[in-house]
Order: sequence, then structure tokens, then C-alpha cells
Amino acid sequence: MVNIVTVGSVALDTVKTPFGEITDGLGGSATYSSFAASFFSKPGIVGVIGEDFPSEHIGLLNSRGIDTKGLSISKGKTFKWKGRYEFDMNQAHTIKTELNSFSDFKPELPEEYKNAEFLLLGNISPHLQLDVLKQMHERPKLVISDTMNYWIEKERETVLEVIKQVDIALMNDAEARMLFKTPNLVKAAGEILKLNSDYAIIKKGEHGSLLFTPTSHFAAPGFPLESVVDPTGAGDSFAGAFLGYLAKTKRLTEKNIRKAMIFGSTVASFNAEGFSLNRMKEISIKDIRQRVREFKKIVDF
Amino acid sequence: MVNIVTVGSVALDTVKTPFGEITDGLGGSATYSSFAASFFSKPGIVGVIGEDFPSEHIGLLNSRGIDTKGLSISKGKTFKWKGRYEFDMNQAHTIKTELNSFSDFKPELPEEYKNAEFLLLGNISPHLQLDVLKQMHERPKLVISDTMNYWIEKERETVLEVIKQVDIALMNDAEARMLFKTPNLVKAAGEILKLNSDYAIIKKGEHGSLLFTPTSHFAAPGFPLESVVDPTGAGDSFAGAFLGYLAKTKRLTEKNIRKAMIFGSTVASFNAEGFSLNRMKEISIKDIRQRVREFKKIVDF
Repeated sequence: MVNIVTVGSVALDTVKTPFGEITDGLGGSATYSSFAASFFSKPGIVGVIGEDFPSEHIGLLNSRGIDTKGLSISKGKTFKWKGRYEFDMNQAHTIKTELNSFSDFKPELPEEYKNAEFLLLGNISPHLQLDVLKQMHERPKLVISDTMNYWIEKERETVLEVIKQVDIALMNDAEARMLFKTPNLVKAAGEILKLNSDYAIIKKGEHGSLLFTPTSHFAAPGFPLESVVDPTGAGDSFAGAFLGYLAKTKRLTEKNIRKAMIFGSTVASFNAEGFSLNRMKEISIKDIRQRVREFKKIVDF
Repeated sequence: MVNIVTVGSVALDTVKTPFGEITDGLGGSATYSSFAASFFSKPGIVGVIGEDFPSEHIGLLNSRGIDTKGLSISKGKTFKWKGRYEFDMNQAHTIKTELNSFSDFKPELPEEYKNAEFLLLGNISPHLQLDVLKQMHERPKLVISDTMNYWIEKERETVLEVIKQVDIALMNDAEARMLFKTPNLVKAAGEILKLNSDYAIIKKGEHGSLLFTPTSHFAAPGFPLESVVDPTGAGDSFAGAFLGYLAKTKRLTEKNIRKAMIFGSTVASFNAEGFSLNRMKEISIKDIRQRVREFKKIVDF
């Protein structure tokens, strides 16, 4: 039975980095997060695809135990993103966005998703995020939200409303600074916590992530990678593996949330080693556990 | 007796940040590093000042037990740097540099510095760094080098020669990428280690620092600060406290080097809480130890 629901984009990505390129590779926030969650749990994915979406991609998701009943097929094409990364791989430069089917996306949860205990409101319009939350039969045990600069600019108040309603607000450093108009991440996190979110997690790309509670901090480093091929989807993989680990272990203590962040960082680091889902497809939970053990050594002093 | 020698710039800095400004505040790489080292050890500072240098600054350094016999006074003015930080405090923007006395700086070590066991070759021309190393009576127990983008552009080969001769090469992430023409810090660190440096340390500003050995990594997070007032000198404070801690504890094991990095990060984090040396002047070793204990909690999972 589906125990995690991830909502977000499903896309065909064309990406160029200093290390190669891919055309129309499987991508999108819900794709990355559900795939990353599938190492630990049984996710259901909610998103929209076009008629051109290759059925082999559905096959791939299903082969990972991901429930795809939440994927609706709309007339026309699948959402397409084209971007590139320069020598400094930290920043994606968008060349072209074709929203296609994604522009009219109205997520509708299949009945059996509505009792899931864990919900990831990935990067879509904050109005839709609130709508998805309402569709659940009961308030899930844990709800996590992500967002992006686009929504912070256009729909700031609604983004804040989403944060009020979730348990863990997740965003990257630039988004946190933008949302609360401060260069200081500690202050931005303080503002998130004031909105009644139990935890604030700020993702910092290759620099790892930070957890804030009203009384403590946690800093998870990025895993130092010899070969970064394509960082696309790293943040979504982080979120998916993070939630997948929590759904599996079911302990929502700060201690376990810290561990879940390390699992999130680990899966995100694998993801960055290849284009699309290529690297994640190659690895097993054993590889993930091995790298988590290396993480332990990396922070020990 | 002087057990650490730090060589570098001594400057009067005019800095503007979103949180205030200071005119002709005491600054410079050797100033920050020797002050930070003085919490742990007995540093001697090597640098040049002009006739306009306020004697109260010398008094301040002496009051910290810093030996200033290595400060030569030259005709004319002290090196002046004018810069500002925008909303994103990570990047200094130089408005004006007046080299003044610093342009003809030829470091000459006082006799009693020449037996020091610990040497920090701060950011000056790599030719001068090599010259200082030659002036030592014996090869010090530990030599650390720092550098900057200016020297990497103008004197790349000599910068590499310095790295060959030191035990720990220290630089920031942008410098490491520039020096070895790779976006990947793990690869850049690998190149440093190939040059026969035992350890490579890459500073990442607010994101902390990374240690690389041929067989291991260590990631020291930045301390999450609620109030960053002026990051000027944070890297130099890191280096000074790092070396000061090692000079005090004298164990050059990887384990102790990791600890020294945490002490470096801690002192650097205090430094960023005020302009010039203002915050470092207020704190004691007790405050530093307290924050190091908080660091332990921050990385625990």
C-alpha cells in the first residue's frame, strides 16, 4: 500500500553540463522524489504527463514499486525543461521552459492515496499544494513542502500559508533569503519556525543542508563528490529519500530526522553522479548505507 | 617565546556592509591570523605598516601577547583596502586598494622568529612566501600557505611551488577551482595532494571547510550565525586559530587537525559577528570552547 504521496512535476529534461548532455531525459520534481523515496518506502506519484510521454518511463517507475495511478495523461505534450550548467555546477541556467500539459495541472489524488501517512508537496503552485492537502482523508502524520523562487515572487502569501500548514518546510538557501528578505539563513529559518512549522530545512546544494528547530541546529554536509555530472533533481532526490527514510523508520524524533537528512544527502549525491535517473537506477540500498557510513567518518572530530 | 610566525598584510580597512560601516579599521591577513592565533599560542607577526599607523593598534596586538618586532615601519602610508558587501554577504566587492607601504614589502624575520616551529605563509606574493621559508633556521614543524586569486592569475607556477614546499595548503573554493581549472573541489584537492602537500584544506566561507588527505575527507560546517556583521578576515582568522590550536596541542595527527579546523571555524564565526577585530576583542578562550561544544551537537547524527 502507498505510504508516501509525492506531488510535483513530471518532465522531459534536456540538459547540458560540462560533462555531457541528455535530450528529453526523464525528470521533474515528483519523478526524482518518488524514485529516491522508493529505496525505502512505497511511494505514489501525483503529476501530469502528455501523450508523448514514453511508456518505458512508466515501466521504470513501476519496476521500482512506485504507484503511478496518480499520473494523469493530458492531451498534448509533456512538460519540457531545457537548461545548462556552467563550469560552476551550482546554478542551473534555464534555456527554455515548455509547460505544455503542466500548465493546466490540477492534481487529483486516487482514493487509495488519501490515507497515506506521509505527504511531500513538491514544487508546484502553492494553491495546488493546499488543494492536495485538503484532498487527504485525514491529516497525514507528516507533511513536507518545497517551493521555488517563481512562487515566492508571484504568490508569496500563499507560499507562507502552505508553510503554516506543514510540519517541515523545505527550501533552498536562495529561496529562504528571498522569502524572508534577509541574507541570514538563521534568521530566515527563525521566520519559518514562527509560522508554526516544526522544523525548517534549508538545502544548500553541494554544501549540504541545515535543520533548524526552535532550540537546535543541525548541519549535514554535502558528500564530497569526485564526479558531479548533472545536479538536476538533487534537491528533489534529497526530499524524497528524506521522507522515504522517515516513512520506513516511523520515528519523528529530531534524532531520526537528522539521520533522514543524511540519507537524503546521500541519495542526492548519487543522483548528481549521472544524468536523469541514470545513477540512481544503478544503485541499491546497500550502496546508500555504505555511503552513509562514510558520512559518519566525514563529520567526526 | 614566539612559537608561531604569521606573515601577511597589515591594513586599514574601510568596509561597508548592510549592517553598518567602519573607516580605517584595523585589518589585514597577518593581523587577523595573529590575533586569532593568540587565543592559543604566542604568535609573532611579520608585516609592514606606514607612518600613519595608529600606535594604539600595536598596543592592542601587544596586549594579546603578539610579538610585533616583525612589523617594519616604512615611509608613507599603511596599506588601505576599501570594500563592501551586498545583501549576499559571501562576496567582498573591492572599491579601492591603496598598496602604499605594502607595495615594496620585503619580509625580514627577526632572529628570534627564525626558530619558530609553526609558520603561516599568509596571502602575499608567492615569491615572498618562498623567501620567508628560506629565512627560517630550520624547517618548521608545520608550514601552512594561503593565497588569493590575484597570485593564481599572475604567478601560477610560483603558487604551485609554494604548495610543494608546505605541509598544509589552504585556499578557498574559488581559488582551488581557478588554480586547477576544475569545478570539482575533490579533484582540485587531489591536485594539491599530488604536489606533495600532506593535507589540503579548502575554505568555503559560511559553508565551512573541507579537509582532504590521500585516503580521507573531513567536512567542518560553518557555524550558523544569527548575526553576520562583516565577514572580512574570516578566512585569516580560521587559519590563525587553526595553527594556534595545533601549536598549543602539538599533535599533528589527522584527528587533531580536524579538531583544529573546528577551532578555526569557531574563531572565524566570532570574527564575522563584528567589524575589524571588534568581536574577537570581546571573547575569551572560554567562549570559544563553549561554541566548539555547540559544534559537536550541530554535526551529531
